[in-house]
Amino acid sequence: MIVCCAASPSVDKLFEVDRVTVGEIHRPLSFVQVPGGKGLNVARAAAALGADVMATGILAGHAGRWIEEALADEGIRNLFAWVDGETRASLSVADHTGRGLTEFYEKGWDVGTDGWARLETVVDELLPQARWLTISGYLPVGAPDDGYARLVALARAAGVSVALDARDEALAAGLAAGPDIVKVNAEEAGALLGAAVGSRDEARAAAVELRRRAGGEGCAGLVTRGAEGVVVVGPDGSAWEGRLHVRGPYPVGSGDAFLGGLVAGLDRELFWPEALALALGAATANAELPGAGRLDRARAEILAKQAEVHPV
Amino acid sequence: MIVCCAASPSVDKLFEVDRVTVGEIHRPLSFVQVPGGKGLNVARAAAALGADVMATGILAGHAGRWIEEALADEGIRNLFAWVDGETRASLSVADHTGRGLTEFYEKGWDVGTDGWARLETVVDELLPQARWLTISGYLPVGAPDDGYARLVALARAAGVSVALDARDEALAAGLAAGPDIVKVNAEEAGALLGAAVGSRDEARAAAVELRRRAGGEGCAGLVTRGAEGVVVVGPDGSAWEGRLHVRGPYPVGSGDAFLGGLVAGLDRELFWPEALALALGAATANAELPGAGRLDRARAEILAKQAEVHPV
Repeated sequence: MIVCCAASPSVDKLFEVDRVTVGEIHRPLSFVQVPGGKGLNVARAAAALGADVMATGILAGHAGRWIEEALADEGIRNLFAWVDGETRASLSVADHTGRGLTEFYEKGWDVGTDGWARLETVVDELLPQARWLTISGYLPVGAPDDGYARLVALARAAGVSVALDARDEALAAGLAAGPDIVKVNAEEAGALLGAAVGSRDEARAAAVELRRRAGGEGCAGLVTRGAEGVVVVGPDGSAWEGRLHVRGPYPVGSGDAFLGGLVAGLDRELFWPEALALALGAATANAELPGAGRLDRARAEILAKQAEVHPV
Repeated sequence: MIVCCAASPSVDKLFEVDRVTVGEIHRPLSFVQVPGGKGLNVARAAAALGADVMATGILAGHAGRWIEEALADEGIRNLFAWVDGETRASLSVADHTGRGLTEFYEKGWDVGTDGWARLETVVDELLPQARWLTISGYLPVGAPDDGYARLVALARAAGVSVALDARDEALAAGLAAGPDIVKVNAEEAGALLGAAVGSRDEARAAAVELRRRAGGEGCAGLVTRGAEGVVVVGPDGSAWEGRLHVRGPYPVGSGDAFLGGLVAGLDRELFWPEALALALGAATANAELPGAGRLDRARAEILAKQAEVHPV
């Protein structure tokens, strides 16, 4: 089982209009609402690839109950920690002018140290049945700075492998606790390491350093570079590059689908290059369908065969 | 008791940012979420003025339960008809550039003819304890075109006075059923009558015509003109103008607060000129506080004393 932790889930609303105009009222041409937040995107992608998935995280109030119910309707098992307040919503407005998404992210209620402790209890209950724990996204308001480090430590104590996708202080603290995989994008890697991460060589150097901070031997560092693919330094220290020359119109959530595909692949005991290819296939299949983390499994498997994975 | 009907309620979210930029991610400087929709604004304003209020309308799903609970937390009694789906949300984004609110209104789930029939049942249950019924806002998706006309007819059959604030077909049909008060803004009056309604004389002519369509003798027609005040043709056919030379920074919901104040005044058996003054005070007090329909009672009563109401 793969436990996918979404500490800051969100009701993701996608609103489509002809044109966003500041100072005007907009009514949607189309509108969908899905359970969102990076951790739930990972769960959705891994589940779509056939993995045995359990979503967890922190929910609150009526919006939280909507998420719980909508995940169940999608067939994604879940067990959340509950706190007072209301789970946040995120509104993304697509228009037809090619100016990209205009997005409004609520901050979310303060979960408090109590709320975070409740999440640790839930995760600890789930770990005995798990082989993997994924941790993705922002730490919620009110969580302890070392929140992700504590989850990594819980998983390690239970003999469960951990993949971490975070940023800034939460990433730095989480890394120090020794996750098996750390996956960030080039911008996040650059922000953490205080260095430009643009070229493939820079991404490789960043992956080496991320792996070193995670504990070195046995750990993997991954830096995704958007359309340029991914650079990986694997558990044995070998470096790889993965690319897939197919683009889709809905890239939101592709990084999460990548992580879902990678862990789903490793969970079904693929070797690293095959798991990387599946991750790239999942990321691209995600970009071919609207909705973060949504993908067609057969299409992801076909795309995985087209992925180029080679040592660098 | 005043029954305030919100056929299309909404979870109203107000998001404040420095500057709205198309194609960017925005995180709020401040954020509030309140039960919204015109009918609930009327309920909130009338309740703030001390009236005995019962909110009703159609709710759905988890968002609906949030509204029900939040109204109860505000001390506003309520009894809703429930349908499948999810009550809509509306996001209004204020920025500091003076370009006005950028708003995104969800359309709302289809309530179906069954859902509308359930609302009629609830309203019919409430009418024996009521003196007034207010009907405000859009007809929900799936409601019959004569939905408001049917509510007006129910109230008339029960001997309950009705105030209607609607637009387009719903207004035309509702008017024909003979409400005691019809209140619209100048733009809505113009759209219904197919005439420009800009000047005071045009507003007066529109109010006369609205009153005629509502049945004439015993009915009142009101046309609000924003900062220019209101023109009224009262139940006895006399015409009045009301103005208040105070402005507030939060005008959203002032028209609803006006209606809440008017009906609260008539319910406490004020004469029309005094009820109009209270309505103007409520509208302006609403504009002095953030949140549609929110107002300070003492401030509204002070402002009512400053209102100018005179025959025209």
